[in-house]
Amino acid sequence: MIIVLKPNHTEAQLEHICEKVEEMGFRYELSRGVQRTLLGVIGEEDELRNAPLKAIAGVESVMSVLKPYKLASREFHEEDSVFELGHGVKIGGGSMILIAGPCAIEGHDVLLEIAQAVKAGGANVLRGGAFKPRTSPYSFQGLGEEGLKILREVGDATEMPVVTEVMDPRQVELVDKYTDILQVGARNMQNFNLLMEVGKTDKPVLLKRGMSATIQDLLMSAEYIIAHGNKNVILCERGIRSFDSSTRNLFDLSMVPNVKGLSHLPIVVDPSHATGRPDLIPSMALAGVAAGADGIHIEVHNCPEKAMSDGPQALLPNQFAEVAKQIRDLAPFFNKELATNPQPVA
Amino acid sequence: MIIVLKPNHTEAQLEHICEKVEEMGFRYELSRGVQRTLLGVIGEEDELRNAPLKAIAGVESVMSVLKPYKLASREFHEEDSVFELGHGVKIGGGSMILIAGPCAIEGHDVLLEIAQAVKAGGANVLRGGAFKPRTSPYSFQGLGEEGLKILREVGDATEMPVVTEVMDPRQVELVDKYTDILQVGARNMQNFNLLMEVGKTDKPVLLKRGMSATIQDLLMSAEYIIAHGNKNVILCERGIRSFDSSTRNLFDLSMVPNVKGLSHLPIVVDPSHATGRPDLIPSMALAGVAAGADGIHIEVHNCPEKAMSDGPQALLPNQFAEVAKQIRDLAPFFNKELATNPQPVA
Amino acid sequence: MIIVLKPNHTEAQLEHICEKVEEMGFRYELSRGVQRTLLGVIGEEDELRNAPLKAIAGVESVMSVLKPYKLASREFHEEDSVFELGHGVKIGGGSMILIAGPCAIEGHDVLLEIAQAVKAGGANVLRGGAFKPRTSPYSFQGLGEEGLKILREVGDATEMPVVTEVMDPRQVELVDKYTDILQVGARNMQNFNLLMEVGKTDKPVLLKRGMSATIQDLLMSAEYIIAHGNKNVILCERGIRSFDSSTRNLFDLSMVPNVKGLSHLPIVVDPSHATGRPDLIPSMALAGVAAGADGIHIEVHNCPEKAMSDGPQALLPNQFAEVAKQIRDLAPFFNKELATNPQPVA
Amino acid sequence: MIIVLKPNHTEAQLEHICEKVEEMGFRYELSRGVQRTLLGVIGEEDELRNAPLKAIAGVESVMSVLKPYKLASREFHEEDSVFELGHGVKIGGGSMILIAGPCAIEGHDVLLEIAQAVKAGGANVLRGGAFKPRTSPYSFQGLGEEGLKILREVGDATEMPVVTEVMDPRQVELVDKYTDILQVGARNMQNFNLLMEVGKTDKPVLLKRGMSATIQDLLMSAEYIIAHGNKNVILCERGIRSFDSSTRNLFDLSMVPNVKGLSHLPIVVDPSHATGRPDLIPSMALAGVAAGADGIHIEVHNCPEKAMSDGPQALLPNQFAEVAKQIRDLAPFFNKELATNPQPVA
Repeated sequence: MIIVLKPNHTEAQLEHICEKVEEMGFRYELSRGVQRTLLGVIGEEDELRNAPLKAIAGVESVMSVLKPYKLASREFHEEDSVFELGHGVKIGGGSMILIAGPCAIEGHDVLLEIAQAVKAGGANVLRGGAFKPRTSPYSFQGLGEEGLKILREVGDATEMPVVTEVMDPRQVELVDKYTDILQVGARNMQNFNLLMEVGKTDKPVLLKRGMSATIQDLLMSAEYIIAHGNKNVILCERGIRSFDSSTRNLFDLSMVPNVKGLSHLPIVVDPSHATGRPDLIPSMALAGVAAGADGIHIEVHNCPEKAMSDGPQALLPNQFAEVAKQIRDLAPFFNKELATNPQPVA
Repeated sequence: MIIVLKPNHTEAQLEHICEKVEEMGFRYELSRGVQRTLLGVIGEEDELRNAPLKAIAGVESVMSVLKPYKLASREFHEEDSVFELGHGVKIGGGSMILIAGPCAIEGHDVLLEIAQAVKAGGANVLRGGAFKPRTSPYSFQGLGEEGLKILREVGDATEMPVVTEVMDPRQVELVDKYTDILQVGARNMQNFNLLMEVGKTDKPVLLKRGMSATIQDLLMSAEYIIAHGNKNVILCERGIRSFDSSTRNLFDLSMVPNVKGLSHLPIVVDPSHATGRPDLIPSMALAGVAAGADGIHIEVHNCPEKAMSDGPQALLPNQFAEVAKQIRDLAPFFNKELATNPQPVA
Repeated sequence: MIIVLKPNHTEAQLEHICEKVEEMGFRYELSRGVQRTLLGVIGEEDELRNAPLKAIAGVESVMSVLKPYKLASREFHEEDSVFELGHGVKIGGGSMILIAGPCAIEGHDVLLEIAQAVKAGGANVLRGGAFKPRTSPYSFQGLGEEGLKILREVGDATEMPVVTEVMDPRQVELVDKYTDILQVGARNMQNFNLLMEVGKTDKPVLLKRGMSATIQDLLMSAEYIIAHGNKNVILCERGIRSFDSSTRNLFDLSMVPNVKGLSHLPIVVDPSHATGRPDLIPSMALAGVAAGADGIHIEVHNCPEKAMSDGPQALLPNQFAEVAKQIRDLAPFFNKELATNPQPVA
Repeated sequence: MIIVLKPNHTEAQLEHICEKVEEMGFRYELSRGVQRTLLGVIGEEDELRNAPLKAIAGVESVMSVLKPYKLASREFHEEDSVFELGHGVKIGGGSMILIAGPCAIEGHDVLLEIAQAVKAGGANVLRGGAFKPRTSPYSFQGLGEEGLKILREVGDATEMPVVTEVMDPRQVELVDKYTDILQVGARNMQNFNLLMEVGKTDKPVLLKRGMSATIQDLLMSAEYIIAHGNKNVILCERGIRSFDSSTRNLFDLSMVPNVKGLSHLPIVVDPSHATGRPDLIPSMALAGVAAGADGIHIEVHNCPEKAMSDGPQALLPNQFAEVAKQIRDLAPFFNKELATNPQPVA
């Protein structure tokens, strides 16, 4: 930590600051410039971060030179994290995933039909929501446990690992019973109690970036999960808030190489939620591959006109198959591989 | 809902759209302009909102003319909501509240000392966190139930209703036992399961606006609480995300008259979290009164240098007393009253 | 400047950095922490700022401890700036101004009528646009020099100083001939050549904050004007870009006390452009007074239905008179005075 | 235009609105829904847009169904625009450009060296600033006409068309004499008088998106240039303002397919200014190709440690050559071609 003193500080204030810093158990080094006096405060990282240095009289600002996350950082774990998701599908270290499926699970037959289509098209992870975070209390909220059972059956039938959202610490045990990957949604990225609970499971967690979360906020939320015992965290960019309403959110693709420099965790990008526009999804999926993502997440529905949730932003199965083929063809250019289906669905 | 057709739509597409709309059970009115064809879709509000009109081929865009919230709207409840918070303190309809206290409850004696100071200074509601949402898993997380007990005791001793944050649906019952007002924090504004649980209690809820929540998002979250049975919702502006890092957040004061036009719910503004800067809090508290707020929320600590959480953004008791006096003097200019202490603390 | 070295830097890199810094003509102090090595670089402010320290190998980041503006800073000029605008109207040091008038000058008679109305209502500065920055090339672009003449005549007839926008360095001489105050619009806040030209005149400049300008950007643009010889700069907050489309822009009132701490320049706030909503203008004008503004800017039109530009966001003269009276009554609470009309208009 | 009436409007208000609309010379169609009354207003596009419908009493909101730009729209010009830039280099319709060079022109020899290096690396357009828009009046402002001469000589010597910024309507004639492409910078995107002046030349214009410009704002600025006679406009995404300070700006890559749907104009993306981070430029340049851009803009300097402006965000020539090779190899995947150097530099 570096303490910058106010330009017109007194010597008494400087002395008071030095005393306080020592009282807190830290060492310091003094540096008097032409215009500013600085104090480099030296000590244990976590203690420094929690010390209320800024509140001392005469202090103008306090600047941190340390990152507040550790387990999620690349300094802590230099190699890319790689882990298994189920049914032989891997993420990280050159293995890409392609997550596809409907926004919400609406029934067994419709999900099976979509799952077979996306598997044939090239997906290797199936998504579907059983608990839906809806901004309106009057919107369809999901099928709950019935939906989870359907997802499990359809995932097994089509031999794909499945991912579904968990919204509530009380649901973690239940959702964990049925799914291969636990999704924490954007609105819950800083629901810290939920992060702790998924941190206690041994299932990979797909952690979606909050709509106004900085890169550091996202990595701190990953740190919560890892600090509670679960190191298999997949980060997901799904668009942030901005001022142009022509897309649903603003797709921040530069976060991919940015986070890759800071952290060893794999990253999935979700052009469906980021843009909310089927016409932009194919281009932005490919741009995601080029940016270095380890996975792409695309919503697919066999009949968007009838979808009970988020219909308009889903691709049709044939549109999906086209972009999936392009993703697979493009991946090797970036030293990645999107594994083909181990066996086609009967 | 208004459907705007693509400029070069075919007659067959128009027919298809009209059929689909009828199939969904709605009526429509066709309007052919010089450049665009429109369809005014007429039907029950909630059904219309959930109908995937945008997914029909040939549709360029769908524009809503209805607000998605009802119980929170001024159209539904024309008069300002007014309700009791405990110890004779009221909010709404001309009665202002002044919430003060430390970020976190650190112990009985320190809280009592602060509470007596803020009561003497002019506060009529006491705040203090027992469960703290911290971005770092390594930061102080609050005293939990022990903190709640201390808060209850100190509130009773100083005859002020108390407010504290609840972060988890599993904590609602516990927190409800000790507090007068349940706070839902900014990071949980769209934790819908938490909203449902606080909606089932009979305690007033202080609902803080999320960092990237639109006015409509905030009112939808209030709608969740009201729709589950609890109509005593207090909205709270505490700053939103923006691009200038010289303040912690961006204080959106125009939301006060904006929301007042749309909703009957009382509004509190929180310059402490909005600015994160003690030097700006007094001016912005007074600006909040002028904007029409029904309450002001200010963090106060008797020794910010030692505060275990958010110390640097708290006012000292004497700074608080000064701004509290100004708030009380200014309120009548806006036809509001900040009730003086019913009886001074011994 | 503080140089933070990469965590795993070599001694050779450190030496290279030290050499480079000396080569650039600066001194340095070395500080080795538990986790990071720092270099405090000491030298002349302006040279330091322009030195490409970050580009040296082994450097992780460079942190500035100096503000990049000087003439606009309160450190340079401790007292509030106060200056005359014409017709005896002053701004700063307790004297408030109230700027009112139409968006665009549409003709002599309509402007005179509005000017008489706003003067009677309580305005002491008249505004009106002769050159209009319109986002569409097909919109009304203003009356040009004819408009300037009308403005001058009407200002003299009603004994108010006048302010009008200048959009182009080539227009400065012309506009300067007719107006008392030169306005630089939000879209031109970083039109540096225009800033230089208005800096060469001796007329006060109303500098509007750009839609995505930070506080520092705004003060740097003021610095441009002052550095070219004109120290009479009035800053103006008129709303910044944000994600909620229910208001035209986001009114950043906390910039008022924030800038007051950093600079001696007077500040005007403009709730008309900031909100774009007549229903919010009165509240936000009063909130502006409470935030500490030295002036309020309100668009007024006697017939918004016919206004050729920005009609819907203007107040009617009687609405204006009401809010003007409230502003005048509120000002003394904040040790300010909005001077009453020296003499009523015949 | 669609007029939405207030929910509780009177019949008299409805009549008044209908009269006003007819008075303005428009037709209308009335649509009474269960909850809302609407008026579809029919007439000539430009007149409709300028009509102050929202100001009529009883009107809640006015929604536009028309785009405010015409000449820039794909509806007006269905095919992609393709045009020549000089020295046989084309943009659009499958031909990609790669713009490279230093931020500022610092002298003949250093520019020639960089130009030869970027040409050898794979660039086909040379950039360099002679007039620099600097946020500080104390920073290096460029070499002016001397810089333009150097740029022309070096462009001819290396057989590349050149692009340089013009900041002031008074400079257009001068800059036009020396350059092949006129650049309008982000800070001047809504400097409408400058847009008009470059619109009167016959040189292609590289129009950079403003830091808080919506897609529509950008297309309106292009419309200004085209409406004044110059249809060779190249749009450029260079990052917008956002809340995360870990990159200089936020790179909005989804604007590429978004704008491609709305407009026929070619698009260049600039990862140098968008990210401000050399470590992110290569990935984001490739992501730009994948998003569908017609050109990439990269700052290159042979010695960033000595660069007089923006040094730290430039690539070194060998870093540039590497990413240029990847861009050329990737382009055919997207049916584009980055033409190899017609002839290597001697």
